[in-house]
Amino acid sequence: MIKERIEALRKAMKDNNIQAYLINGSDPHMSEYVPAHWQSRPFMSGFTGSFGYMAVTLDKAALWTDSRYYLQAGEELAGSGIEMMKAREPGAVTLEQWIAGELQPESTVGFDGTCYALTEAEGFESFFSKNNLHVQSGVDLLTEVWDNRPGMPDCNAFLHPVKWAGLSRSDKFSALNRELEKAGADLMVLTALDDVCWTFNIRGADVECNPVVISFAFVGENRAKLFIDETKFDDNALAELKNDGVEVKPYESFYDELNTIQGKTIMIDPARTNFHVYNILNDNNKMIRQLSVPALLKSCKNDAELAGMKKAHLSDGLALLDFQLWLEEKLGKETITEYDVAMKLESFRSKQDGYVGTSFFPIVGYLGHGAIVHFRVSPDTANELKPEGIMLFDSGGQYEYGTTDITRTISLGPVTYKMKRDFTQVLKGMINLSNVKFPEGTKGCHLDVLARAALWNDQKNYGHGTGHGVGAFMNVHEGPGSIRPDLNNQPLRPGNIFSDEPGIYRAGEYGIRIENLIHVVEDVENEFGVFYKFETLTRFPICTKLIDVTLLTASEINWINDYHKDVFDALSPLANEEQTKLLKRLTMPI
Amino acid sequence: MIKERIEALRKAMKDNNIQAYLINGSDPHMSEYVPAHWQSRPFMSGFTGSFGYMAVTLDKAALWTDSRYYLQAGEELAGSGIEMMKAREPGAVTLEQWIAGELQPESTVGFDGTCYALTEAEGFESFFSKNNLHVQSGVDLLTEVWDNRPGMPDCNAFLHPVKWAGLSRSDKFSALNRELEKAGADLMVLTALDDVCWTFNIRGADVECNPVVISFAFVGENRAKLFIDETKFDDNALAELKNDGVEVKPYESFYDELNTIQGKTIMIDPARTNFHVYNILNDNNKMIRQLSVPALLKSCKNDAELAGMKKAHLSDGLALLDFQLWLEEKLGKETITEYDVAMKLESFRSKQDGYVGTSFFPIVGYLGHGAIVHFRVSPDTANELKPEGIMLFDSGGQYEYGTTDITRTISLGPVTYKMKRDFTQVLKGMINLSNVKFPEGTKGCHLDVLARAALWNDQKNYGHGTGHGVGAFMNVHEGPGSIRPDLNNQPLRPGNIFSDEPGIYRAGEYGIRIENLIHVVEDVENEFGVFYKFETLTRFPICTKLIDVTLLTASEINWINDYHKDVFDALSPLANEEQTKLLKRLTMPI
Repeated sequence: MIKERIEALRKAMKDNNIQAYLINGSDPHMSEYVPAHWQSRPFMSGFTGSFGYMAVTLDKAALWTDSRYYLQAGEELAGSGIEMMKAREPGAVTLEQWIAGELQPESTVGFDGTCYALTEAEGFESFFSKNNLHVQSGVDLLTEVWDNRPGMPDCNAFLHPVKWAGLSRSDKFSALNRELEKAGADLMVLTALDDVCWTFNIRGADVECNPVVISFAFVGENRAKLFIDETKFDDNALAELKNDGVEVKPYESFYDELNTIQGKTIMIDPARTNFHVYNILNDNNKMIRQLSVPALLKSCKNDAELAGMKKAHLSDGLALLDFQLWLEEKLGKETITEYDVAMKLESFRSKQDGYVGTSFFPIVGYLGHGAIVHFRVSPDTANELKPEGIMLFDSGGQYEYGTTDITRTISLGPVTYKMKRDFTQVLKGMINLSNVKFPEGTKGCHLDVLARAALWNDQKNYGHGTGHGVGAFMNVHEGPGSIRPDLNNQPLRPGNIFSDEPGIYRAGEYGIRIENLIHVVEDVENEFGVFYKFETLTRFPICTKLIDVTLLTASEINWINDYHKDVFDALSPLANEEQTKLLKRLTMPI
Repeated sequence: MIKERIEALRKAMKDNNIQAYLINGSDPHMSEYVPAHWQSRPFMSGFTGSFGYMAVTLDKAALWTDSRYYLQAGEELAGSGIEMMKAREPGAVTLEQWIAGELQPESTVGFDGTCYALTEAEGFESFFSKNNLHVQSGVDLLTEVWDNRPGMPDCNAFLHPVKWAGLSRSDKFSALNRELEKAGADLMVLTALDDVCWTFNIRGADVECNPVVISFAFVGENRAKLFIDETKFDDNALAELKNDGVEVKPYESFYDELNTIQGKTIMIDPARTNFHVYNILNDNNKMIRQLSVPALLKSCKNDAELAGMKKAHLSDGLALLDFQLWLEEKLGKETITEYDVAMKLESFRSKQDGYVGTSFFPIVGYLGHGAIVHFRVSPDTANELKPEGIMLFDSGGQYEYGTTDITRTISLGPVTYKMKRDFTQVLKGMINLSNVKFPEGTKGCHLDVLARAALWNDQKNYGHGTGHGVGAFMNVHEGPGSIRPDLNNQPLRPGNIFSDEPGIYRAGEYGIRIENLIHVVEDVENEFGVFYKFETLTRFPICTKLIDVTLLTASEINWINDYHKDVFDALSPLANEEQTKLLKRLTMPI
């Protein structure tokens, strides 16, 4: 079937005089999670992993993915004629190099510019032009060959109340207009779904796990235009939007409207704007490239958003208490698999007020499965839990008032000393990052080492970043800041929420990760400058059975005991008798 | 006098139809320390600080410098008609913005492209063209107006023996040719003086503190051409160079020779190559931009270089013991100023075998002067030392076999608890950076926080980087790596030598800095990857009188005692009786 699809694509390529066609499986909004309508990569390759991109020439096809998916891609691509290529490895052949090697000079590389970010597409243009290849970015060959293509997402949308948003639509429009004025720009174009939804205080369910709605927008010149299928809203919501000065227009009319804009100065974020949008506007307007203003503003949570996030973490804590009660009751008595754990986590969260859904696909890894960093639990591959060893579970919820993301690694019975030593070193890293005070201007790549030093000093490490930004009833992965080794130039700002999730993974044995969410608050200002620190949002005990206390400093022991006291004080007033009894046991001082 | 010089410059500008002229005071080699011949900034402005750049229009003139020099520049520029501008401050008007505001559209900005790096000059071109200004980079108006301009440096040059260089000229040429081949290039052009001197194993004294010779070079196509005044060498040296296949040509013939190169692929480092060189070559050749190969290779010291560096640190340790003996004998009995200290440091170093000169202008700061990070000691401003409080001294030597750079802060008598607390926190930072193990690929900006965390946690900080690269009988400041918050993309490599020099500065009170040199060595390779660690080169005790032991962890106390044992074991076999007695006292366990 894949072979036939590729042959159909090649026919379309020939009709359009295109010698190589690129497919990345992104959408016009540069989303991390992509609605079925735009899932072109699995359609065209059969590969179902979350990361990959593909090139098809008239006689070859290749798909790049990273080390997480080498095994899976190898299996899924077998027999398709598509070669698997390694991405993100130093020295490996890149897609651009591969194409330059395959095509004759003066050939044409085509792709659908609506699904590539400006920065990426410009990279193609620059590389291919140096290699005497032409680029045609305005060709959507997929629609031609994609029979029964899934329709556009059509879930209902709703308004996010100021109670949890903290700022009204008008407040946000004013803030955006102030930034336009500073930059000497007339308009900003918003294409990332979370940028639009934050700006207009709307939420929806068009994308799995992310409470967003398929939409575009302009803000500026005292106008706010929202391009969205208005049937997603009820009448009251539409009336409120219009009352706030929002002009609601059909999603499909966005590109036509772009074509009417002339002589303006327009602000776009080159990493979050698709190439097609840029090309239309660039012909007749002056473009200013700048980090998305809504992205930056929404990363600094206001008091209402922080209050909602705290409430969400209380709900999460209660749900996890229920989960642990269930686990302790059933483990060793009934058959429980990793998949059951994932289902139960969701089920206990769904009992909490205001629960909307899961904030990402849960990761549940018992022993060896825990060592697969992005293990996606499924009924087919789930292992059964036994009353021994350790289990890692990483899950989160979307609540009407906030978003959670928590990882705990817990003992299910007897454990080895190696597990305890690893766990304690991971914990030291998690605490040391939580505990740091740092001056204004500090970036995430400066702090990342604090979560690693205890592991590094024992010659261990983990291959992922330490922290990602988290939205407030919004995407669980949110920019622009991060706490990773990558040289991200964004300083940490008060109100930023990050995960703090060091780990260690021993292939075939077990994985350990401990994750709290932390947020940046002001500490002091003195002769040395302005200092910030972190406060912890997550409210669930850390498994003290896995701690080797002799490896901890006095201040680390104090941190644990203080944290557990905070967790107890926060959850116990909301807990039932059984939950409280468990909470008391789990938060005993060490 | 400055006014007259500027008027003469303006006349030359009018004759050349130039409406703004730029002067940065750099040389054609992008040197940090610039020979008198190229010191155009002090000549044209009267400002003598180490950092600044200047723009002159037909009716205005302005000079930018940074916060270290606001006071000094204000005084030195008074009455000159030159306005002082703030550089390196967020939001301050840049030189480019100032010029764009001053000039009419279609005006011309001129500068001498031989004294601007390619990256900088391209920045000008891009900014000014967007502002409808023309750029003329081939105009040297200074020579016209500079009567009695100092001549070219004419110090003797000599060969650096393989015993200390570790690699012969042929070894180095082969290494460079291999890199050319990898990149598909024919030639590399070397314009940075340390790149040339490292490649050809030559040293000299054309630049203060840096043992380099004014020169250019090409390497590639089985040729090595060195553009240098050959009268700097004795006959034996010249014969050896020629015997190694080096074609020695007059320094002045370099640009003419560039004009003859056609149809080649040429590798240049855009940050280390002057714009004029690039422009000549770019017309008739294909240019490849890449970090300087000699810069990268020389940053990874080989065994011979490390042996020399270790020897240099023994010499330095002995010299500093002599210094401390002298200080203890004279303090409180004779008048001693900060300037005397600087002189004595130099004088005791000069008694060591193979001493060549100071590796930078020494910084000696007693009490309040210690808080001025770049305090340059002079007889006029030197304070007298008293037997109380603390003194910071930062000094280093060039030896035929290596380069040193050490800072110690010592008590001269009674000190406050605040001083001890500050000192101990700085020391913790110095130790924590020394002690880290880290995986391959780690960059300096990842580790910088380790030297700061103890200060940050007490809401203190320092405004400079933690570590710079250090050459081996070469420049004391050497790239491409660094240990600073700046997002420098260069990973730390085995053989890299860095300073580890956290500090704290309390204006009007005192300054504290503790600096050792450390070098990267391989630690282990295991399932988590390849790990590196640091070893310490510096061999002189740290003032234990200033330590508050209660603030140290057990492992920090061990570090101090182990370090002092190493210092004792290394220096005592070389020390005289008096030195040994002092050494024993200074290295007593805490």
